[in-house]
This record gives sequence, structure tokens and C-alpha cells, in this order.
Amino acid sequence: MNNVAIFGYGTVGKGVKDLISLNPQFNLVSIFDMPSKKDELGSLLVTKIDEIINNNKIDTVIECLGGDTLAHEVIIKSLSNHKNVITSNKETISLHLKEYLDLANKNNVSIQFEASVGGGIPIIYPLSIQSDFDSINEIIGILNGTTNFILTKMQKEHMPINNAILLAQKLGFAEKDPTSDLEGLDMVRKANILASIVTKKEINNDDIPHFGISKLNDNILKQINDKNLILKMLTRIEFKKDHISILIIPTCLRGDNLLSKIDYETNAISVFGKYQDPLMFVGKGAGKYPTASAILQDLIRVSKNKEYKYCNLKEKAIVKNEFTGTYLCFDDKNKLHELTNPDKKDLSKYKFVCLVD
Amino acid sequence: MNNVAIFGYGTVGKGVKDLISLNPQFNLVSIFDMPSKKDELGSLLVTKIDEIINNNKIDTVIECLGGDTLAHEVIIKSLSNHKNVITSNKETISLHLKEYLDLANKNNVSIQFEASVGGGIPIIYPLSIQSDFDSINEIIGILNGTTNFILTKMQKEHMPINNAILLAQKLGFAEKDPTSDLEGLDMVRKANILASIVTKKEINNDDIPHFGISKLNDNILKQINDKNLILKMLTRIEFKKDHISILIIPTCLRGDNLLSKIDYETNAISVFGKYQDPLMFVGKGAGKYPTASAILQDLIRVSKNKEYKYCNLKEKAIVKNEFTGTYLCFDDKNKLHELTNPDKKDLSKYKFVCLVD
Repeated sequence: MNNVAIFGYGTVGKGVKDLISLNPQFNLVSIFDMPSKKDELGSLLVTKIDEIINNNKIDTVIECLGGDTLAHEVIIKSLSNHKNVITSNKETISLHLKEYLDLANKNNVSIQFEASVGGGIPIIYPLSIQSDFDSINEIIGILNGTTNFILTKMQKEHMPINNAILLAQKLGFAEKDPTSDLEGLDMVRKANILASIVTKKEINNDDIPHFGISKLNDNILKQINDKNLILKMLTRIEFKKDHISILIIPTCLRGDNLLSKIDYETNAISVFGKYQDPLMFVGKGAGKYPTASAILQDLIRVSKNKEYKYCNLKEKAIVKNEFTGTYLCFDDKNKLHELTNPDKKDLSKYKFVCLVD
Repeated sequence: MNNVAIFGYGTVGKGVKDLISLNPQFNLVSIFDMPSKKDELGSLLVTKIDEIINNNKIDTVIECLGGDTLAHEVIIKSLSNHKNVITSNKETISLHLKEYLDLANKNNVSIQFEASVGGGIPIIYPLSIQSDFDSINEIIGILNGTTNFILTKMQKEHMPINNAILLAQKLGFAEKDPTSDLEGLDMVRKANILASIVTKKEINNDDIPHFGISKLNDNILKQINDKNLILKMLTRIEFKKDHISILIIPTCLRGDNLLSKIDYETNAISVFGKYQDPLMFVGKGAGKYPTASAILQDLIRVSKNKEYKYCNLKEKAIVKNEFTGTYLCFDDKNKLHELTNPDKKDLSKYKFVCLVD
């Protein structure tokens, strides 16, 4: 039950190896990576995925490859070969969750992905338990450390956006090409995963509208801050009777909103249930050990209860957004236009758009 | 596996009944209470505990009696009769956790108590998972909604302490005799439970020093607030190499500390691990549905994995507090004396004592 293999020996894979070595109940059998890692990994290294897939002693694989090509192949083959899979890969989970859950259930194993949303914060598991007995009305969160870091640097330290992006890259928070963070694509995937867990329905990333902060500048931010509002990049999911509203959008918060106090690379998720509202979880959303910690949470859970399953995704969800409320829209000359209950089309005319909470 | 009985049909018991009725996978077989509840409960009511204990169809009992006399008897008899036990009763858990865990393990059943700390906030389970792979260094929390409500009313709305206590009683947050909340005894029990989960050692409530807010007055509070500090009632647990430091004490926080923003009856718990720091959980710490929600979390967990166990408590913990740092001590004339690294004896001379964070 406790023989483990890791696919991918990058930052997260190394963190997982470190934490496993502190837990004698787990036996790390193999790590898949490039032959160049031989000196570092010695006899742990395997360079063909089938050496792990076909090793019947290995019960659980931890996928730390990233992306959706090799990761997808590894996850499918591992589940098919009766191995539990643990992953932090939000891209592949948001694209193929139904396929993975079906395959895991068919083969009586488990697929776990606590680390895919909110880094080390336990959210997927508690949310899956809560949605078993409670009606979840809404989830609002700061789910991207990179954009929160940039917005905090801009608002608390008056750093220009380009410098903040460069600093985030230097500190390892932002990718070389930061578009997926800045334009909200990373949050689309995370929102998809959270909403799937709650509704037990399949969600298409393409159905989720997202507004980014690439075009934000100091002039716009000053106009927002002058209204005593704090700008945060929020992921908003509302669960309605027959559909889900999901919106990834920069949002103006008042200072008495606890989310306005969540700064730098910290993430926070608020869950509003019918019987237990609100719950808020705060922690580091990314990084070597926060991510590895979430993977260890899954590993311990799976080792105690091999058949722990979330659900199957039975149908496709209807995702639509009503764009209700007040939106601050800035044109190419940074001039503010206030729109109430706009059409999505109206919003697309502006350079930068944010919602007023 | 899913036949359930409830002991005690007060506020929490009613909340649990409501939530179970929304979950068709659970079958509520019996509720133990006084004969006077017959009209309300009909054939669900039983008035002798053995009718539940000896009913072999019942797998799991939920103890909502409170106190430590009948609750202790019910828990011991239920575990001995191979039933899982779920309870929100921090008094009996803090007094008898070792006995309960030993008995549960011996009989291959589970004792769960998520609701005993932080109401509906999932903390016991995530903490037990985290302490399996991480070194927990420190836990700091606002674990008592009553005192947080009173301190918020006093500081945000300038309400005198006696009015705030009366209002808390009127709203159902505070007991008729509020001493156990105001003097920190409630938090002693909660700290005991959290520290036991992390260290897997037995802890004596009497070893935990606690300072209360009964003697707080507007004059003292004004002197604290004039220093730009916010007073919060904190539970502080530090895990050292060979001992645990636990201290329940009013604490002066700066405005940039997120705990200073946790207001009214809300609870918050920050966990500082070596590999995952800091994690913060925020939510309603008490009340009908928050407490019932935590009980349902346990019920779902136990129904999915009957043998889920926390640990055994193997030895007695060494609990001692160094009283390091700066303490603001107010004498009978509300005059402030600042003490650094005091003896506990020194602190006992003053009317009101708080720590500066």
C-alpha cells in the first residue's frame, strides 16, 4: 500500500521526495526523469515511464510533470494499471477530470489533486466533504499568488506593474511567459476544479469568462484606490439552481472585506454554504513545500483509505454569467466609465475592467 | 454502516437531525432524551441509553449531551459496544481523550471530535493529517467566539464590558455563567485537544496557564488602543523539542496581523508548520449549524472509512510556559506596568494582564 513513485523531478518533485523521506511509512521506489538526473538520483532514477507503470509493487504514483501531454499519458496508464494517482497538475485535471474519475472508479483506485488549487491549503478535500451534506452557494477566492503579489506590490509599495512582474519572475512566482497568470487562465482551471467538485458535473474551461490585469497601469489603479477601494484578482463561483456562474475578474474590495487583507503571494478561499457560512482558508498558494505538503495530505489519505473517491462527473454543467453589479471600465485614455449590469459585449470595448464588490 | 443515533436533543442535536435528514445515505434510528420530548420526536425517542447502546443495528452514535458525566458513560459504553462515536464535547474529550482512543482502537471503531474546536471549521482532521508529515511549530488562534464578540463590541462599538456580556448572553453566544469563557477555561480544553492531536501525548488541563478578561474595563482598553494595539483573546501553543508551551492570554496585536481583523463571534486558527507555514482557517466557532456541520464532516468521514483513527496517546506531555516577551500589566488603579520575561508569580499580582505580540 505504501510503495510510491514520482514522475518528474523538478521543484515540486524534489519537495515531495524530501517530505516522503521524513515519513518512514512510505517507501519511495522510483523517480522518472531525464537521464541527466542519474548523478543526483542514482538507482532511484528510471527514464522510461513503463518501468513505473509495469512495476506491480508500486501502489501510488505522484505526477509532478506539469503540462497535459506526458502527464495525461502517465495518469491514464497508472490508473489503468490499478495505481492511485496524486497530482498537482491543474491543467490536466481541469481538462480530463471526468475521464480520470471514471477510470479510477472502474479500476478501484483513487485520483487525488489537493495541490491543484490553493497550493498547500486543504480545500479540495474539505470542500468535497462539505458539498456532501451542505448546499454550497458561493466560493470566492484569491487563487493566484502571482497576480496577488503583483497587485500588492503595486498598491502597497507603488511599484510599477512591469517591475512587479519582473520581481515576481525573479522570485519564482511568475512564469517566463506570465500571460496565463495575468489574464486569469490559471484561475479558470482552478475554478473549473472547484466547481466540478461541488456540482459533480463536467465543466468546460472555454465556458469560463476571465478578465486579466495585463493592461492595468498606475493611473487606473490610482483612480480605484482614490475611491478607497482595494483591487484584488478574484475567482467567483456562484451555484444557482440550474446553472453555475463563474467569473475570473479583478475586483474592487472595501477595506473591511477580509480578502482585501490577503497580500503578496498568499491565497485565500471563502466558501459560503447554507449551513456553514462563511469558511475561509488562507495559506501559501504555491511553492516547493506548500505544494508538496498538499501532495502528502493526499498520500496519507490514500494510504489510510485506498478507495477514497470523490465522485463521478455525471453530466455537463451549464455555465453562464449574468454580469450583474457595477463594473469600473477604463478606456484607452484611462478614462473611467461606470457600467451597471452590462452585457459582456459592452465590457469587451474597454482596456481594463473590474467589478465592484 | 450508516445507521445513526443521537444522544441529546438540544440545539446541536436538532441541527444534526436536520442535516442528517438532508442526507439520504444516513438513517437516523433513535434519539435519546427526556420523556418530555415524546411529542416532538415520536418513535425516534428513546429514554434509556441502553436502548441505543444495545441496538446492534446502530453503527455510529453522535453525543450531543454536553458535560462529562452522562457523556462519559455514553461514550465508553458505545465504543465498548463497537460503535463509532462522534462528539462536539470539548470537556469530555480534553479530560479523557487517551481513554477514548485506547478503547476505540481496541474495539476497531473510531472516535471523532471535529466539532470540539473551532465549531464548523475543519481543523482537527487537517491538523492530524499535517502533523503526520510536517513538524508543527506553533498554533495561534482565536478559539472562543464569546470573548471575541465581547472584545469586538468593546473596541469597535465602545460598548462597556457588562453590556457586551449581557448582549452575548441574549444572542446565545455566552452561557448564563460566562466564567468558563471569560477566564479562558473553554480555550484550555480546546488547546489541550489541538496539542494532543499534534504531539500524540496526553495533556492535563490543569497544566495550562490561562488569563482572562473578566477584570478588563474601558480605562484599560483605552490605554491599549491608544498604543495602536488591538486586544484579542488568544490561544497560543508552541511545540518545543522536549515540551509544549501553552498559554491562554489576552494579546495586543498590531493592525497588520490578520488575527486582529477577525471580529465578533468568528474564530480563526493559524498553524505554523515547518513545510507549510502559515495556514489559517476562519469560520463560525459555535452555533447550531456550524457545530452540526463539523459533526456531519466526521460522520461522512467515518462512513467512508470506518477504521479511520487519529492515534493513540502514548505518554504524558511536559507542558510548561516560559512567559517570555513583553506583558502589559494593570494594577487595581488601572495603572500600567510593563514587564519583560516575567515570572508567573509577578503576573499574578495584577488585575489584568495581556501579552504584546
